[in-house]
Amino acid sequence: MQITTIEAIEILGTVSFAISGSFAAMQRRLDPFGVLIIAFVTSIGGGTVRDLLLGDTPVAWMRDVNYCLLILLTSIATIFFKTYIKKFKITLFLFDSLGLGLFTILGIEKGIVFGLSPGICIALGTITGCFGGVIRDTLLNTIPLIFRKEVYATACIMGGILYFALLYFNLKPDLAKIAVIAFIFALRIIVVRYKLTLPRFG
Amino acid sequence: MQITTIEAIEILGTVSFAISGSFAAMQRRLDPFGVLIIAFVTSIGGGTVRDLLLGDTPVAWMRDVNYCLLILLTSIATIFFKTYIKKFKITLFLFDSLGLGLFTILGIEKGIVFGLSPGICIALGTITGCFGGVIRDTLLNTIPLIFRKEVYATACIMGGILYFALLYFNLKPDLAKIAVIAFIFALRIIVVRYKLTLPRFG
Amino acid sequence: MQITTIEAIEILGTVSFAISGSFAAMQRRLDPFGVLIIAFVTSIGGGTVRDLLLGDTPVAWMRDVNYCLLILLTSIATIFFKTYIKKFKITLFLFDSLGLGLFTILGIEKGIVFGLSPGICIALGTITGCFGGVIRDTLLNTIPLIFRKEVYATACIMGGILYFALLYFNLKPDLAKIAVIAFIFALRIIVVRYKLTLPRFG
Repeated sequence: MQITTIEAIEILGTVSFAISGSFAAMQRRLDPFGVLIIAFVTSIGGGTVRDLLLGDTPVAWMRDVNYCLLILLTSIATIFFKTYIKKFKITLFLFDSLGLGLFTILGIEKGIVFGLSPGICIALGTITGCFGGVIRDTLLNTIPLIFRKEVYATACIMGGILYFALLYFNLKPDLAKIAVIAFIFALRIIVVRYKLTLPRFG
Repeated sequence: MQITTIEAIEILGTVSFAISGSFAAMQRRLDPFGVLIIAFVTSIGGGTVRDLLLGDTPVAWMRDVNYCLLILLTSIATIFFKTYIKKFKITLFLFDSLGLGLFTILGIEKGIVFGLSPGICIALGTITGCFGGVIRDTLLNTIPLIFRKEVYATACIMGGILYFALLYFNLKPDLAKIAVIAFIFALRIIVVRYKLTLPRFG
Repeated sequence: MQITTIEAIEILGTVSFAISGSFAAMQRRLDPFGVLIIAFVTSIGGGTVRDLLLGDTPVAWMRDVNYCLLILLTSIATIFFKTYIKKFKITLFLFDSLGLGLFTILGIEKGIVFGLSPGICIALGTITGCFGGVIRDTLLNTIPLIFRKEVYATACIMGGILYFALLYFNLKPDLAKIAVIAFIFALRIIVVRYKLTLPRFG
């Protein structure tokens, strides 16, 4: 079984957001069923909004039951491992940042496949990256991360511009993808570190 | 004029949620126009999200003006009869539970028609059943029922599993539908009774 | 370059809502990036929901990058001119009302093009007109204007009925459009004046 770069990114992004959703839900003391729902919504939220806007329906998670299984397993594993993890906030933040980078690239790529102009592709990437977290935070009744001081959507937009710049200079697409994911991930961490504050949840 | 089982379920579900929406809105002391809007949104919310996710557009209520008229008439009737009904909370709860069962079956059936796998059909049924109420509660600024302690989405998921089990054992589809609707309705009532608390609204 | 009436209405509506969104965001003291996002969401919200419900995807703003540029420029201009404008609330209210009338007509027209019945067209117009503002207010965590005492959705519905009445009496469509936009705009202003209160934001 061969896995393309895009598939690998999709799997990693789904897992990252499922973990970040599970942690956010456990932090708010939801019961296990609530944790599953939040993990699911966080993981599929961005891609669902992307597919709806593009009219690529039935949306992705409906066509491939494996993603639902992946989220289920990730969420259950997260619940079991939670006792080993002391620092919920940091773990949540790291996986949220990783998922952000991965999903931004997925959104941009899908926009390119649909023949949209670069500016719109970047907007689509930003939406794909951010919406899972926005829905998660809205459901958990915390102020969405996107509206706080730390860069969030900004990281996606800058990453998107970087991606088109790298492609323009003929970097191999797969390398460009990995570079941009690392850029978005690093940017968020550096900004939060530089401010010497961790994101405050709830 | 012949009415199929699905059509009958659709009509009953639309009426149930229009009543539950009207009561919820009157309880929050909205003016008659606000009551109409909330009744409308509660009735069409679940089916609209379902059709959007499936890409079955224009969404159902746009193709058949009769559903809009049905909601309008139900809502007006509810406003007029409200003086005869003392126990808003119980009435709201009963019709909400009934609509939940009816719409869950509608969502599952549509998933089957679209050739989706059983797990996805159950998710679609749950979304169809729950979303009208979630939007209603969000607009009325109360914590959505789905996030409270009583089973809500859980009832839909268990009903969905029961439905596929009944079909597997070759029960007639129409009978299976009615059994599952009764099951979801009864489950919610039993759970709330057992806890000896009625749902607290607002 | 020839511009049709519909295109002119679309441009004016986009600008109006971009201004109203920018003002609402500045009033809540968002940073410039937040102001851009809110301006964007307010401008495209109604049309996006309309296109999703109709299944006319990719949604409008994805197909024409010019609308995104228009919103960007409007929002930047608004930020620069804000020092000259003392009365935020009134300015916001005027542009919000203007956008409401313009977008209602756009929604109705698109419904007619899709062959929907007049009642559904009016609902679609109301959704197109109102949703940008609803999303704006929800994101800014203020109670959406639509749920306050002043007519809002009601103005759209009455405007929609007027539009079909004017067409029925063979008024030229372009004239009917302008009349209805003026009617919705005037109706909102008269209602707010008559109550001798300006809308309270935040």
